[in-house]
Amino acid sequence: MKPIFAVILAAASAAVPAIADPLPSWNDTGAKARITEFVDSVTDPTSEVFVPVAERIAVFDNDGTLWAEQPIYFQMLYALDILQQKAEEDPSILTSDVLKAAAENNLEGVMAGGHEGLLEVINVSHANITPEAFKSSAHEWLTTEDHPTTGLTYAGMTYQPMLELLSYLRDEGFATYIVSGGGVDFIRAIAGDAYNIPSQQVVGSEGTTTYAVTDGVPALTKEGGITFIDDKEGKPVGIMRHIGKRPIFAAGNSDGDFAMLEWTTAGEGARFGLLLHHTDAEREFAYDREGHIGVLNRGLDEGPDRGWLIVDMAEDWSRIWSSN
Amino acid sequence: MKPIFAVILAAASAAVPAIADPLPSWNDTGAKARITEFVDSVTDPTSEVFVPVAERIAVFDNDGTLWAEQPIYFQMLYALDILQQKAEEDPSILTSDVLKAAAENNLEGVMAGGHEGLLEVINVSHANITPEAFKSSAHEWLTTEDHPTTGLTYAGMTYQPMLELLSYLRDEGFATYIVSGGGVDFIRAIAGDAYNIPSQQVVGSEGTTTYAVTDGVPALTKEGGITFIDDKEGKPVGIMRHIGKRPIFAAGNSDGDFAMLEWTTAGEGARFGLLLHHTDAEREFAYDREGHIGVLNRGLDEGPDRGWLIVDMAEDWSRIWSSN
Repeated sequence: MKPIFAVILAAASAAVPAIADPLPSWNDTGAKARITEFVDSVTDPTSEVFVPVAERIAVFDNDGTLWAEQPIYFQMLYALDILQQKAEEDPSILTSDVLKAAAENNLEGVMAGGHEGLLEVINVSHANITPEAFKSSAHEWLTTEDHPTTGLTYAGMTYQPMLELLSYLRDEGFATYIVSGGGVDFIRAIAGDAYNIPSQQVVGSEGTTTYAVTDGVPALTKEGGITFIDDKEGKPVGIMRHIGKRPIFAAGNSDGDFAMLEWTTAGEGARFGLLLHHTDAEREFAYDREGHIGVLNRGLDEGPDRGWLIVDMAEDWSRIWSSN
Repeated sequence: MKPIFAVILAAASAAVPAIADPLPSWNDTGAKARITEFVDSVTDPTSEVFVPVAERIAVFDNDGTLWAEQPIYFQMLYALDILQQKAEEDPSILTSDVLKAAAENNLEGVMAGGHEGLLEVINVSHANITPEAFKSSAHEWLTTEDHPTTGLTYAGMTYQPMLELLSYLRDEGFATYIVSGGGVDFIRAIAGDAYNIPSQQVVGSEGTTTYAVTDGVPALTKEGGITFIDDKEGKPVGIMRHIGKRPIFAAGNSDGDFAMLEWTTAGEGARFGLLLHHTDAEREFAYDREGHIGVLNRGLDEGPDRGWLIVDMAEDWSRIWSSN
């Protein structure tokens, strides 16, 4: 058996990029080393903090963590486009000031309606459609429409360093999940193509879906209405509901991710919390403590003392977008 | 490279039981051949109905399909035991006739309360506990308490032929999921040990869970209350929410599984629907059209015309329990 074993070992080590840099878009500014040191420690069977493969669960926020979220969540821009198409066909659907503002692409008017206003836009734009048709529509929009300031497609505005991190973790035996405040069907529309993450590894906010047989054809229909908001304290809840285990690695960028990182890193053994700090006004967007999207206060104040890695996008990343 | 390739091939084929029967507890009565013919057809790359691994999703009901459900769902027996323990410590929790009946182990009195009564028992017995502590308690109960008529542990009352089917499908590249009307945390307590199914592949009914930090310790708490019932039309809904894809294989045993089989088998390409018919009063339990548990009417009436396999447990299985 010895020669066979040696051959298999040789083949195995040839397949593992032991020397190649798994995170080539990360500068050597310290952040990269902290990530690889953690991964080395939990994947080394002789390590005191070794974690078996089944427990190597890594969770990632989506908006602002895996792709951009300015000037507003991409899902909201999609919802506005769809609402405007629907209103052209039937203006009578614009039954409120928020919906009228949305139809005129008046973002401030929509935001003035607060959380309820956003839900109203989502409800009208995302309802009365099968999940399959919705995902097909969202996929087309994300891969063909251009972002207002970068001119890139939305699907092209994923962060190359984060794609490398996802891929690196998977190569090291982690299961990578998205845990997002965004709608689960919207993210699933692109998660396979954009992140190589299958639909069952996407956790998100959920709406009312019903099952019915019409003319002999069974189908699910998205009805509008939100049944679960996977944000803030909802993120640990959503993870337990969906995955049933506490992750050992969590990445986010806003205080909406605080509870997820808090819960993840409070577990026993080695844990990793990562917050992206949007510091790069030139290549991406610079924002943190103020604004209407991706607000990061508590994470900046408490994250370092909690041992979380704060990634400075301007300093730590040599490249931003996956598409250029 | 040729010698290495040959060695790897030899190692690979040695690991695959090409000749051994993957379903040894299934008699040669036709049912087994229908299953293996389906699996052969969707896993053969040259087949017209070949299905890639990522789409090989198989879903299984739990109660009455993977393990027994008589005289009542095991989760209800567990809930009664816990309720009785709690009532001994504090009788004031028995605030209704249903709860009083439950404390006296009066099953008929509990059932007289209908669906609402069952929820009341669940709410009182499954609340104010972390999911981790709940799973630990349920696991101990399932592996140490004896069933009232068989004398087996509850965990020992899984069906050996179904364990073989799960294992066979996984060997053929399927992802196997449980999709149950039972509580997701209860099933996850035992799914790994009993079925080799990880927690993230268990879909079930869900209760209210909250996240809070107490004395610096972040924790989730089960609060009682049901937020999602994964039964009947809820099963396709739960599958889409959790997995995000339509399965190609679905197995159940009651009309609570009808919509799941209907939706699964209405998809394009090769599909498989399986219903267990509880016909074996001697070795297990015999029931179908009447009763309070596992009622199967529509499935028996329409299943065969829909091409679903009706498994006759007395005739098609040479062995029932995994534990003896």
